[in-house]
Amino acid sequence: MFGIEYPIFAFSHCRDVVVAVSRAGGMGVLGALYFTPEELELELKWIDEHVGGKPYGVDVVMPAKYEGADLGDAEELLGKLQGMIPQQHKDFLEELLAEHGVEPSNESAGRALLGWTDQTARPQVEVALRHPIALLANALGPPPADVVALAHEHGVKVAGLASSARHARKQVEVGVDIIVAQGTEAGGHTGEISTMVLIPDVVDEVGEEAIVLAAGGIGRGRQVAAGMALGAEGAWTGSIWLTVDEADTPQQAIPKLLAATSRDTVRSRAWTGKPARFLKTAWTEAWESEKSPGYLPMPMQFMLISDALRRIGRSGDGELVTFPVGQIVGSMNQVKPAAQVVYDLMAEYIEAIERLTTITEAE
Amino acid sequence: MFGIEYPIFAFSHCRDVVVAVSRAGGMGVLGALYFTPEELELELKWIDEHVGGKPYGVDVVMPAKYEGADLGDAEELLGKLQGMIPQQHKDFLEELLAEHGVEPSNESAGRALLGWTDQTARPQVEVALRHPIALLANALGPPPADVVALAHEHGVKVAGLASSARHARKQVEVGVDIIVAQGTEAGGHTGEISTMVLIPDVVDEVGEEAIVLAAGGIGRGRQVAAGMALGAEGAWTGSIWLTVDEADTPQQAIPKLLAATSRDTVRSRAWTGKPARFLKTAWTEAWESEKSPGYLPMPMQFMLISDALRRIGRSGDGELVTFPVGQIVGSMNQVKPAAQVVYDLMAEYIEAIERLTTITEAE
Repeated sequence: MFGIEYPIFAFSHCRDVVVAVSRAGGMGVLGALYFTPEELELELKWIDEHVGGKPYGVDVVMPAKYEGADLGDAEELLGKLQGMIPQQHKDFLEELLAEHGVEPSNESAGRALLGWTDQTARPQVEVALRHPIALLANALGPPPADVVALAHEHGVKVAGLASSARHARKQVEVGVDIIVAQGTEAGGHTGEISTMVLIPDVVDEVGEEAIVLAAGGIGRGRQVAAGMALGAEGAWTGSIWLTVDEADTPQQAIPKLLAATSRDTVRSRAWTGKPARFLKTAWTEAWESEKSPGYLPMPMQFMLISDALRRIGRSGDGELVTFPVGQIVGSMNQVKPAAQVVYDLMAEYIEAIERLTTITEAE
Repeated sequence: MFGIEYPIFAFSHCRDVVVAVSRAGGMGVLGALYFTPEELELELKWIDEHVGGKPYGVDVVMPAKYEGADLGDAEELLGKLQGMIPQQHKDFLEELLAEHGVEPSNESAGRALLGWTDQTARPQVEVALRHPIALLANALGPPPADVVALAHEHGVKVAGLASSARHARKQVEVGVDIIVAQGTEAGGHTGEISTMVLIPDVVDEVGEEAIVLAAGGIGRGRQVAAGMALGAEGAWTGSIWLTVDEADTPQQAIPKLLAATSRDTVRSRAWTGKPARFLKTAWTEAWESEKSPGYLPMPMQFMLISDALRRIGRSGDGELVTFPVGQIVGSMNQVKPAAQVVYDLMAEYIEAIERLTTITEAE
């Protein structure tokens, strides 16, 4: 479909990683969430100049459901939602920060709304479609049907993340071409069903109408092979690109990611208001504690905490630092160039297939 | 190692299933938990008479940690532990039962302690080793070293369930021959790491010293193939045998199991006190609700509820009926003979390997 050499899709918020993976024979996919439309334009221009004509994609977040879907344009929405954040939540947060020596701030909440509303993600889609992208992915629920149609008009394939066969069916119904079937072990927003159980479910449900990629827990070649054995036609990866040479992952998070085992993640609402997998730290624990006021719905939870996350990044004892990452973090123990990660994945994949073939013939 | 035709291990509490799987070319493993030593003797005698000389195994539960490990023999222990169950928990339970129309009972708590203490599991081991079993499995943590040595003296291989690489290492250190690496998607007692992430972790940790079997989320041939692709040498299955023709699964549970999707399970302490995966029902929800007094430690939680489970099985609105089962329950939609399940697994396994080989050669 894309003329890529290896069936490896690499989700990253870092343009350097996207370029490195696409140039190495996989497909880099840029997460647009944290960029304004103007910034995204600059990122994609840079990618176009450096990717050497190889295919790449852009990933946006247009959730099917969120607070404020009917509250007007982005600016109006931001103001209204900010007024809806309870004082109790603000107080809990400031106390937690103070306990960990994080300094106060007088900055404005800034871009706290991010690209995860229809109002803020649409301009990103418009920017993306002005570039020679091969793929537009949506990370939360089925994208609006008119966005799918618009992408198709531009000759761009559309991918959607799904965490159940039922969600995959809904996506195919609005015209999505590629289902990224993502198991609970994945980093970031994730459902409850494991990759092992989910992939055959999704392939049986929509495999004749869409390409299915396996996601969640994939960071080594054996896992790519397992995803394909389950019926997928390729692998979607994310976490493993956080610790490559090219990544712009916050410096405070890197040693924590390298040291973590596969038991050190937790699925929590403490970042975005929807369940997402993160490094288990004092942050995720505090929000689960008895003192916690509970989570706000998306996008208010992140609006509440976005300023705090910046402050945590600059000061404090480091205990609150967390990061979205999957259970595969346990095998991310070494910083390597992205191209090396692609080649290692494929070498181990081939090895796994050869072992399987030998075992099966012997039986 | 066992001279079996297919690398499929089938855990079941039902002797008929054990015999059917072993005769079909896999390896049936009888769960001994619910049997007294005398009953177990009868079960194994029956298996010996019907299994046609094929290898089979026995599974006991000797948890590394539980309340009362130092409280004397089985009878003494039962009495002391019963005295430790808070009235608050008893009251919560009776109210819950009354809400769902479950009738009171004057029966004694009966065999509420089960085989999951050292004191109650050892006699089961002694019985098992008097039979020509090929495998002794332990379902919670590393078995005591002397039990491993005793099994080896009888020429019996020992398997241990592990939910992390660290646990697998501990088991190998006490002499376990086979590690059943079980992902969080499994039914019954289960950890947090998914099968996809766990298997390569465990294979890298102990693969040169022990045989590794993949468990958790395995109910179709594609999943057997995925487990092997991840580096395992066979598959350990459990849930899928609950709905075969031969199974003695409670009649109330069968339609619920057949109707459930892969989203309808939950990992809960509401049965044994340790996290175990079950069908999500009014039972698991009540124990998670605000009214819940919380869970008692193993083995007291099951002592508290064992009588209630029998009563729920006999009366009430059926809403409280649950059953230990993994996420694979979503694909258990049809009652089939056990031998047919074995053949279907292997046919789909071969198909998956052939597809993989074709894809890989084409690339």
